[in-house]
Amino acid sequence: MTVTLINVFEVPPEQLDDFVAGWRQRAAIMAGKPGFQDTRLHRAVSADARFTLVNVAHWDSEEALAAAQASPEFRQNVPAAARAAANPAVYTVVAEFTRDTPNV
Amino acid sequence: MTVTLINVFEVPPEQLDDFVAGWRQRAAIMAGKPGFQDTRLHRAVSADARFTLVNVAHWDSEEALAAAQASPEFRQNVPAAARAAANPAVYTVVAEFTRDTPNV
Repeated sequence: MTVTLINVFEVPPEQLDDFVAGWRQRAAIMAGKPGFQDTRLHRAVSADARFTLVNVAHWDSEEALAAAQASPEFRQNVPAAARAAANPAVYTVVAEFTRDTPNV
Repeated sequence: MTVTLINVFEVPPEQLDDFVAGWRQRAAIMAGKPGFQDTRLHRAVSADARFTLVNVAHWDSEEALAAAQASPEFRQNVPAAARAAANPAVYTVVAEFTRDTPNV
């Protein structure tokens, strides 16, 4: 069953560009792992936002995600600052509305 | 241009079910507003997650979203507890990888 990884980052504004560059490297590694579906890094439009970056990714299963996160190739590419800024958790969709089907 | 509203909620575990019920009512209102595309409420699989609920919604523009949020019909349906638990912000996608096109 598809799971959603949401990672809420608290990154100071002056570190945002460097953080995004590092995130791209890690995302490229994860994109090659079994069970990966997609990942999107969102940046807040306002500099005042509490959570400046939010990643939303989809994986085929919690097991596939955990295996990818445990890989040495990934772990070696997560600097301590990135780890400290991250709040990753696995989620499932509990309610959904779309324009075409307004009451799913 | 499509914008993403991400709302990170800090809701105590014992209030989650009631909160989701109230969220559904508000989402049904928003789904009828001009410029609405979709909205998905995610619930953390682990009870230990710092952010227990995260809403990810897409709108046609920041203006359309702001107009919907300003509508009396919506505002009257946001209780103080829901407002206190919410951390809404508008985001744009700054990096994206998908299974089919691994380096967008």
